[in-house]
Amino acid sequence: MARWQPGTRERLQAVALQLFASEGYDGTTVARIAAEADVTERTFFRHFADKREVLFAGQDDFLAMFVDPIAAAPADTAPFDLVGRALDAAAGFFPEDRRSWSRARQGIIDANAALGERELGKLATLKARLGEVMRERGVPEPAATMAAETAVTLFHLSFAQWIAPGEERPFDAIVHERLDALTALVHPAR
Amino acid sequence: MARWQPGTRERLQAVALQLFASEGYDGTTVARIAAEADVTERTFFRHFADKREVLFAGQDDFLAMFVDPIAAAPADTAPFDLVGRALDAAAGFFPEDRRSWSRARQGIIDANAALGERELGKLATLKARLGEVMRERGVPEPAATMAAETAVTLFHLSFAQWIAPGEERPFDAIVHERLDALTALVHPAR
Repeated sequence: MARWQPGTRERLQAVALQLFASEGYDGTTVARIAAEADVTERTFFRHFADKREVLFAGQDDFLAMFVDPIAAAPADTAPFDLVGRALDAAAGFFPEDRRSWSRARQGIIDANAALGERELGKLATLKARLGEVMRERGVPEPAATMAAETAVTLFHLSFAQWIAPGEERPFDAIVHERLDALTALVHPAR
Repeated sequence: MARWQPGTRERLQAVALQLFASEGYDGTTVARIAAEADVTERTFFRHFADKREVLFAGQDDFLAMFVDPIAAAPADTAPFDLVGRALDAAAGFFPEDRRSWSRARQGIIDANAALGERELGKLATLKARLGEVMRERGVPEPAATMAAETAVTLFHLSFAQWIAPGEERPFDAIVHERLDALTALVHPAR
């Protein structure tokens, strides 16, 4: 069994994802993941609180990625530009070398109702946090909630397209296509 | 036990909702609902497939309310105007005398994870149907999906406000406030 070494966390994630895909999520134990990654279960639990967290680790970073650029924006930034800043930052969270992991992860989540719920919960938390940070900046209701919902919808649709079969464009190009589509929808050129 | 009579369905719904609130959803049986409404279980099952359907009956009407006005709109109607038509029709589905039922129903749903999931599934079905009808009208992607998501978000936020404690404005006033908020939020990129 290997002791602590750089890359252990990433190896555990890669091994777990393969096992979830081949044996099913419910059929995969932490013991099996640890054994396949050549570490002890104790090492697994140093990295992840439980099996599910292999798929949902980094949620604080995920939330901060959206919220921090909004909190840091100049005071007079329009709410829709805050949304754009958050989405631009999100694009940095999904570089090309993450796409195959994200596709595989989504396959596992779509196959398991409880994981799907956990994922929806993540987006609901994001909506709530974005609404809060908008209100903290003085954006009134219902604009604050509308901005938060819009940001999460744009993110969610962009992410779904980014991992769609055959899609090769980078995340930011897909986000901007959807921002433009929303703008054209709401303010059609006459 | 009463035989078929007008209003039986509404009485079953009212009785069920009271029991769900006082005894809990899981703790309420169809037998109890039927007994309290003074009908046989067989009569209950003539009106509802199961206990859950008391809360989710009329889903086809709910979907049609959004979809039909879009399908019936003139060919050159802009997608955002299709969204507005659907939401105007939705307002007709939620008259004042439905508000207290809707508030009580939401309380039951919020207290039960499985019912919450069912409700989310209803909105997901609505999104999918709206996307379809937009595409059938020749709206391209990603505009069709964006319009569908926007319609459901506007509906969902409006409904949540309509049943909020102390809210007394009619559904259509709340919808238009949110349509205006979205219009004010979204602006072309500089």
